[in-house]
Amino acid sequence: MNIQVYMHPSFNTWKYIIKRPIKDISILTDSVTPIINNVKKYGDLALKTYTKKYDNFNLKYIQVTEEDINKANIKISNCLKKSIEIAYKNIKFFHQKQIHEESKIEVLPGIICWRKSVPIEKVGFYIPGGSAPLLSTVLMLGIPGKLAGCENIILCSPPNKNGEIHPSILYTAKYIGITQIYKIGGAQAIAAMAYGTESIPSVYKIFGPGNSYVTIAKQIVSQNGIVAIDIPAGPSEIVILADNTANPEYVASDLLSQSEHDMESYILLVTINESWWIEKVKSELKKQLINLSYRKNIMKKAFEKSKIIVFDSLEEGINLINEIAPEHLIINCNNAIYWSNKIKNAGSIFLGNYSPISIGDYATGPNHVLPTYGYAKSYSGVSVDSFIKKITFQKISKKGLRNLSKCVDVLSSEEGLIAHKKSINIRLKK
Amino acid sequence: MNIQVYMHPSFNTWKYIIKRPIKDISILTDSVTPIINNVKKYGDLALKTYTKKYDNFNLKYIQVTEEDINKANIKISNCLKKSIEIAYKNIKFFHQKQIHEESKIEVLPGIICWRKSVPIEKVGFYIPGGSAPLLSTVLMLGIPGKLAGCENIILCSPPNKNGEIHPSILYTAKYIGITQIYKIGGAQAIAAMAYGTESIPSVYKIFGPGNSYVTIAKQIVSQNGIVAIDIPAGPSEIVILADNTANPEYVASDLLSQSEHDMESYILLVTINESWWIEKVKSELKKQLINLSYRKNIMKKAFEKSKIIVFDSLEEGINLINEIAPEHLIINCNNAIYWSNKIKNAGSIFLGNYSPISIGDYATGPNHVLPTYGYAKSYSGVSVDSFIKKITFQKISKKGLRNLSKCVDVLSSEEGLIAHKKSINIRLKK
Repeated sequence: MNIQVYMHPSFNTWKYIIKRPIKDISILTDSVTPIINNVKKYGDLALKTYTKKYDNFNLKYIQVTEEDINKANIKISNCLKKSIEIAYKNIKFFHQKQIHEESKIEVLPGIICWRKSVPIEKVGFYIPGGSAPLLSTVLMLGIPGKLAGCENIILCSPPNKNGEIHPSILYTAKYIGITQIYKIGGAQAIAAMAYGTESIPSVYKIFGPGNSYVTIAKQIVSQNGIVAIDIPAGPSEIVILADNTANPEYVASDLLSQSEHDMESYILLVTINESWWIEKVKSELKKQLINLSYRKNIMKKAFEKSKIIVFDSLEEGINLINEIAPEHLIINCNNAIYWSNKIKNAGSIFLGNYSPISIGDYATGPNHVLPTYGYAKSYSGVSVDSFIKKITFQKISKKGLRNLSKCVDVLSSEEGLIAHKKSINIRLKK
Repeated sequence: MNIQVYMHPSFNTWKYIIKRPIKDISILTDSVTPIINNVKKYGDLALKTYTKKYDNFNLKYIQVTEEDINKANIKISNCLKKSIEIAYKNIKFFHQKQIHEESKIEVLPGIICWRKSVPIEKVGFYIPGGSAPLLSTVLMLGIPGKLAGCENIILCSPPNKNGEIHPSILYTAKYIGITQIYKIGGAQAIAAMAYGTESIPSVYKIFGPGNSYVTIAKQIVSQNGIVAIDIPAGPSEIVILADNTANPEYVASDLLSQSEHDMESYILLVTINESWWIEKVKSELKKQLINLSYRKNIMKKAFEKSKIIVFDSLEEGINLINEIAPEHLIINCNNAIYWSNKIKNAGSIFLGNYSPISIGDYATGPNHVLPTYGYAKSYSGVSVDSFIKKITFQKISKKGLRNLSKCVDVLSSEEGLIAHKKSINIRLKK
């Protein structure tokens, strides 16, 4: 494990140090496009063919039966059930504070305008399969979706070699109230949710993480159809800003925790500390990795591109971090709130020595579906807002219309839109 | 002017009646991609070359000078200035109510989480040129952008044959406080704002309407770079729902006002009224069109695809409209608010006989940048929200961490993420 250390890099080198791997989407697009087109054209038949090909299972029924969902209940330990309940409560508590009712506004006498939050009627979740069932993502998507009031929520996840979805995903989905579940994975699941098949209804917005095929498929369908997607996705990211109050043992454990997601994970430590502290972090990384046999190869690979950047001042560190716009940022410094107020670009910020990302990944309340790859410069993470749109309303009286008619007459004339002003004048001629 | 009338169409024919023209983006993509690549590679040189080619002007300086902006002030009539001021006030008044401060939430003892709205640091506006200076769009983008607190706002607009931007655009921009203005139009302007050139700084989000080249360019840069865009754009849309309280004269004037935007405008009248009322609307359209010489050809073309759909009940009309998800909807019915509460999908809704869209386009307060092409199923119009992102924060104490550690231990084990739970346990071992 050999992390590259950059000592006091000058501003013009920053962009090389912080840059993310370039996305070459053309090859992936070429392999995903026919999948999408075939699902659009052949529906369920294409879904079954791809499931045979990629998941190695002959699917008879695409939808998970009520019986299967109920069976999951038996397979889940009480201890897991209790933990899901705790996480559920916290996530719900945090997200329900995001709901605001806006009042009607009398802009001028006779001109009343307002916005109304309306849930997106049909949404679809993609939950990856594989060895690790991402039940926490079911919570992170399902809870705000239900709070927003989405009427139709469907979920797709690839089946395992026995043609089943992991019981903890089924249990969690049912716990939230999602029972339309389909055993389809990959780009074909995204296409099915975008265009609909005989079994799977089309939706208006698709949420959820996935491998690079799923990610590209989400981009393609959002480009060509009228389906929206949550956030453009990339590998997981951690940046830590540390001063001498940061415990090297904890810092190492946070870097390691992020590295187990993906060998493409983006891992960066920014510090003003002296070399003994940096050496201590490095030795801790080695030491702690020994006890992490399970995903060691992924983690080692992820650390090949990791970096430690040393500055003279925290201000410089903050400036660099604002250029990065990391998904997760730990500010492990004295007066962490003060420094966090200088952050302009980040997905989620964790403050102090006792706020590891992993607790937030599961159970504190805020969402873990966050913008990566620099998208935190313009995107927020998932929240109740992601499941609603706001419709504006205007109710104008004849008097209100008269009061503004001169103004609109002048402005629409300037823009050369004569029929616009006529539609007002015709109402006032009597 | 020959509008097609559909009498009581059955549900399975709806999708054919309401469908929008298919976007074939491949040809446009092929012509826009080299423009984007050249701007990325050659910067200002490419911008000047394309301005010569498409706007027929040899541009010496790309940025509008302070002197030019000040000169615009002299060219604008007091009457226009007054109208801009009135619109500005109303738009600002409506949009500033969209700003909510969220409070910190103690999810559990020792676990404090919150969201903070942070303005997008750098945003760019595209304002189309041509005969009609869209100064109202400068207001509709600039006011929420400034209210959100965006630090850097730039504006691109193509120059006319004298190499100038229309003074009413310059005046309005300056009025709002936007002074970084560039004389560049088309796909090249979008590329410049996405990637930056010597003269034009790159931004994080691009807003504003444009022709199909501009629209495709926005899509391409949002796909390949890390720049976000406001809303996928399409031609302007009007749907009117009318009962026997609707005045056919007013209804005709509203349909006409929308048709003057674009010959691709989407125009639909949904009604439960009898044939004499429908004939009256038709004859009004003909009569009113006579006095609209200026854009008559655009309007006639737009009406070729317009439709009147007759139902037995308003409920059916509402169901059809929810399938359409129109940009603008006028509910010109008795008890309009009651019916509007059944609408799930629309950009902006206008209620009653005295709420024409054109007044909302300019001066009532709500935004006129709205989702088209069915995107109202999942997107909102532009608002202050479009200029901010929300960062989540978590501050956890050792006690708070301990309280949730068991829960996260169980959940992360289930997901096979062992380093996650270790990053918590290491903090609690003492």
